Order: sequence, then C-alpha cells, then structure tokens
Amino acid sequence: MTRSISILGATGSIGASTLDLLRRNRGAWKVVALTANSRVAELAALAREFDADIAVVADERYLPQLREALSGTGIATAGGAAALCEASARPVDMTVAAIVGCAGLAPVMAAVARGGTIALANQEALVSAGDILMSAVERHKATVLPTDSEHNAIFQCLSGNRFVDIRSITLTASGGPFRAWSQDQLATATREQALRHPNWDMGAKITIDSATMMNKGLEFIEAYHLFPVELDQLRILVHPQSVVHSMVEYRDGSTLAQLGPSDMRVPIANCLAWPERMETPMASLDLAAIGELSFFAPDEERFPATRLAREAAQSGGAAPAVLNAANEAAVAAFLAGKIAFSHITVVVERTLQRSIPRGPTSLEEVLEIDANARVWANELMEHV
Amino acid sequence: MTRSISILGATGSIGASTLDLLRRNRGAWKVVALTANSRVAELAALAREFDADIAVVADERYLPQLREALSGTGIATAGGAAALCEASARPVDMTVAAIVGCAGLAPVMAAVARGGTIALANQEALVSAGDILMSAVERHKATVLPTDSEHNAIFQCLSGNRFVDIRSITLTASGGPFRAWSQDQLATATREQALRHPNWDMGAKITIDSATMMNKGLEFIEAYHLFPVELDQLRILVHPQSVVHSMVEYRDGSTLAQLGPSDMRVPIANCLAWPERMETPMASLDLAAIGELSFFAPDEERFPATRLAREAAQSGGAAPAVLNAANEAAVAAFLAGKIAFSHITVVVERTLQRSIPRGPTSLEEVLEIDANARVWANELMEHV
Repeated sequence: MTRSISILGATGSIGASTLDLLRRNRGAWKVVALTANSRVAELAALAREFDADIAVVADERYLPQLREALSGTGIATAGGAAALCEASARPVDMTVAAIVGCAGLAPVMAAVARGGTIALANQEALVSAGDILMSAVERHKATVLPTDSEHNAIFQCLSGNRFVDIRSITLTASGGPFRAWSQDQLATATREQALRHPNWDMGAKITIDSATMMNKGLEFIEAYHLFPVELDQLRILVHPQSVVHSMVEYRDGSTLAQLGPSDMRVPIANCLAWPERMETPMASLDLAAIGELSFFAPDEERFPATRLAREAAQSGGAAPAVLNAANEAAVAAFLAGKIAFSHITVVVERTLQRSIPRGPTSLEEVLEIDANARVWANELMEHV
Repeated sequence: MTRSISILGATGSIGASTLDLLRRNRGAWKVVALTANSRVAELAALAREFDADIAVVADERYLPQLREALSGTGIATAGGAAALCEASARPVDMTVAAIVGCAGLAPVMAAVARGGTIALANQEALVSAGDILMSAVERHKATVLPTDSEHNAIFQCLSGNRFVDIRSITLTASGGPFRAWSQDQLATATREQALRHPNWDMGAKITIDSATMMNKGLEFIEAYHLFPVELDQLRILVHPQSVVHSMVEYRDGSTLAQLGPSDMRVPIANCLAWPERMETPMASLDLAAIGELSFFAPDEERFPATRLAREAAQSGGAAPAVLNAANEAAVAAFLAGKIAFSHITVVVERTLQRSIPRGPTSLEEVLEIDANARVWANELMEHV
C-alpha cells in the first residue's frame, strides 16, 4: 500500500534522514511536495529522484533557478511563503514538518488545518505558538507525531497506556560538552569548544543550545504542550551517553524508557510507520558493549536554561516565545564572537524580565512577539 | 466497580504482595477463594480479613484445623488437590496463580479451562507444561498476564505494539552473588554465600537458582512460551543493579525497557489493574541517586545454566520439564550439603543427556516426567 508524503524542509538534516528512509522503502511512498529555503540545486535533484508532484522554494528569488532545474520533468514549481502553505495544504497521508525556525509555523498550521498527520520536528511551532497549534490540532482533528528523539521516546513509552496513569515524564539530557565544567570555566568557553557535541551531529544553533542546556529547556516547553501533564510532573535528567532518550513513570511504580542509537532515523521511522513500525538500518543495541549508563541531577546553578524555560512555561502568555527569540539572538551573538558563553542565558533572563505581552492569538502576533524579543535582546547585548 | 479475585497460594510471597495491594484498595476487590499448602492459621486469618467465600488447604490433613479456625464465619472450607481445582474453577475476574512447583499445574489449568484471566506466577506451568498450557489458553480464550518481574516488564514493553515488529527480547539478570567469581571460586561456594542475593528477597530455592543463573534459564523457557518469538530472538543480559527488568527491541531500532524497584508489588499491580494501572506505594525511580546502571554479556563458561535451558527449549519435548526437575533435585541436594555448588548444573546437564521422552500431552504425563527426572538426578548424584 503506497502512502503519500510531503516533506517541509527537505534539504535539512531531518529532511535528509526522512528521504534516506524513503529511499530504503521505494514503492511504499508517493512524494507529493518537497520544500527548501534556498538550496534549489539539492531540492531539484531530490524532486527528480523521488518524482515529487511539486517542489517549492521559500525564498522566491531562487524560483527561476528551480524552474530551470526542473524544466521538462513535469514537476510543478513554486516559490514564496504562500506557496509553502499551499503545498503543505495538499492532502497527504503524512507531512514531515522540518522547517527550522518561525518560517515553519504557517506551513505547519496549513497541514493542521486540513486535519493531517504531522511528524513535527519544528520546535518553534510548539515553543512559540504551542497554545495556538494545539488548539488548532484539536479543532481540526489533526494528529501530531513528535519527531524529536526525546518526545518520540515519550510517545513510544505512552503507547497502550492511559494518560491518567502517568506519574511523571523525564526528559534525558546529554549535558553537552560542558557538563563537568565549573562556573569559572564556563565563563571562558569558546565557540569551538561549544560546537563539539559528544553524541549528536547537529547544526550550530542547536549544538550551542545543547551546551547551555537551553535545548532541554525548549524541549521541556514542547513536552508540556504535547503531553497532558502538569509542569511539576515534567523532569530533566542528565544522562551523558544519550542511550536512554526519555522515560515515563506510571502510578504503579513502573517506568518505561525508550533506548536507541543517536540517529534521527529512529524517531522519524517511528512517525512514518506509526502505529506500526518499519525496518531501519540501525544495528541492534548492545548494552554489554556500552557497559555503563550514568545519570545525574541537572545543576541549574551552572546551567540556568532549564529553570528559565520552566519559569517561562509557568508564566505562559508570550514568555516561551520571548525565551526562544531572545535565545536565538543571544546564540547568534555568541557564534559571532560578540558575547561570552555564559552571557547567553543572562541575555535570555534579562529579556524575560521585561514586561511580557499576553499570549499570542494568531501567527501574526507570534511573529511580532518574536521580532520584538529579538530587538530587546539585541538592545540588552549592547550593554552586557 | 468491584472485581472478584482468587489467590492460589495466598500465604506465599506473591500471595502476600497481592493481598498487600488489595488491603490498600479496600472495596475495589471481592475475594472469592484463598488457598494455601499447609499454613492454615495464616490462611484462616486472611480469609477472615478479606471475607473470602472459600478457604482451601492443599494438604488435607490440615482441613480440620482450618474448619475450626473459620467456624461460625460463614466462610466455606475445603481440602485436597481436587478442592484446589474446584476453587480455581469458580468464576472470578482475576486469578493470581502463585502456588510454587508442580502442585500449581492443575489449579492453573482449571482457571484456564473456564477462560479466565490469570496473573501467572507459577514457573512450572510454563517450563514443564508450556505447550499444554498455552494451547489450552488458546482453546479456552483465557488470558495469561505474566507476573514475574522480567516477563511483566516485557509484557509492558509490548503494549500497543505488534508482535511482528519485535526484533529481539532481552531478559536482564542480576548475575547473582557470584557474578564476579572465578570458576575455581565457584567450586567452593557455600550454602550461606549462595543464599545472599544482592537485590531480591526471595525463597531459598529461587535464590540458589539466581546464583547458578538457572533462574534466568527457566525464565528464558517461560518467555519462549509467553511471547511469539524464535529462540534466537531471545537474549540474556547481566545487569547487577536489577533496575531495568527487561527490554524489547523493535525493527526500527527502538528499544523499550521497563525499570522499577525490586518489589513484586509492581508487576502484580500491573496484572491486577491491566489494561489500566493502579496506585502502589512505590517511591519514584531516582536514577540520579542510583547513578549508574551497568551491563555485561553473560558468561556461559562459568554459568552454564542458561545454555542448558536454551538447549532444552531447542530440544523441546520433555527436555524443559526434565531440566526443571533435575535442577530442583540438585538444588535440594546442595542446600542439604550433599553436593557442591558447581555440581548443580553438572547434575542437570547429565540428567538431560539421558534419553528424553517425547513432549507430555497431559498433566499426568508432566508429573510422571517430573518424578522420573528427579529419580534420575538423584541416581546421578550418588556418583558425582
């Protein structure tokens, strides 16, 4: 049985992992839409390879190049933000939402609005627009499958269980490259040191987030929207080996954990095949070879990001969107050599101390809050 | 909603854990039958406390005492093997089958024959009579809920999943008190040393089985009957902390594990409340306090029991019943100071080298094979 699929953000890392799985299951999937931000050559090659119905480039300036690259193939082309949403609104069995940043919000909402099944890898949709997204999901009877390794692990541990039986949910965190560093050492951390992640091969922004543990803070907010638990039922546990991807404890004292390799193809495959499972090329887990799994309580003195995220979730309203935008601005400044590593969370905290607007009620408001928070954060950085 | 329950083996360790949970949920359960082997004073006290319909003592000689202890209460009394089966045949929502040894076979079959839901803690039913039991379960549309901590862990990890997606099942083993001992040291292991189990507080027989790792061998055979996998999909992993109770790996590369305290009330509660979950008095799992989980491949040179069990499962027929009976005889001889620790598995292996009869087709044949294997094992021990 062939199922149809669209991939928003086909040339990114999640897109590549998804297409790798599709390549291994030729005939199982019919590709409808593939989108990219600006990498038209790659997009065109993928559209040809998978015989997509339509290829869309978000940055309209690249549309002529895309048209040329796909001329004579019968593959439709389009460009711009509206075209992205139109492509996402095309009926498919599965939408992989893997656009990075706020640019992904509107296309995700378009897939939700047609009641689709969405493998959600766009963090901003839940962090900055969580209330809007989840109420739309309910209204349109859409299905969100969490694609982050941690949230997918939780999703797997919840399978066959009732939400009312959950005692707590624990997100595991690698702790990043600075897990064992003192506060003084952290103040001197360089860009190169921060970019060296022990377990996962990811983009620069997310790798810095992992070093500050803001990544876990953002995931904490995502989990709060995805799963029906209170904030005090959500925990974070440092686990340097990243073998246990997350856990759910039930009220009978049982804890279910999902373990696996640090390879995004596992959670993506879980979403693609859900509620069944599909073959992936992963080697079997060999815990005897790994030998030891270790666990530590997070230290919010040295790594305040998770505290900031929890507080933002508690405050609600626009606070999570402000947290996210301020963090993006601060990480960009750190990567540009403008601020010190330990100032990233200082900037986020100070930005959150401004008067935070009410919760956004539309995507336009989310984007406005996001833009304003970046301005505030950048203003603050002039004086840090 | 009150549910009805019978507990076969109410005065043993599983019985006590079950009744502790019932005590914490007064009003949720109506106790129908409670049975014991010979401890009538305890049985009578429990029957009064839980206002059982009937109390049954397996050893008929104690029936007069039981009658006297319960006279005037309106609680019916009975004694002997047939009465045990009659009690088990009474319709209830849940039967906890916790009689130790082959004495538990017939009562389990009586519960299966009425298509009941059975929390199964009687190892012999699956090891010695696995084919008979499981075909009866299918014929009578009975439901078996695995109550051993390992099998219950697997059962939980399978929830909401399709059997066809299983890649492998891993039983974890503490490795027992002699995990790090050399072959030479093992030859000198005393009764007292073998009875000191690091994690679980259990009876003498099962504690010795844990020291030889025969316990894991027997569980391996049980798992083979309970879950639809081939022998080469079943694995054993040494995990000294006994926090991970077992695991299931799926074909997408995901492994689900169940973790929890070493307290039988967790798996029993899971069976009692299935497919929901109930509150237990367990503290939450604190992996940061535990700090480290370690894993080792089993060493079948020093601990050949799991190899013997796998070979017996492979041979099929009466081999698992012979393995179990020979092991019981050998453990009894070790506990009586008649053979050395390292001779336990030697006796089992030599007994299995005799010509093994075909698979039993009735409980009578199982009991005959069991009795014969004990005679063979005892004969062998004269010459070890």
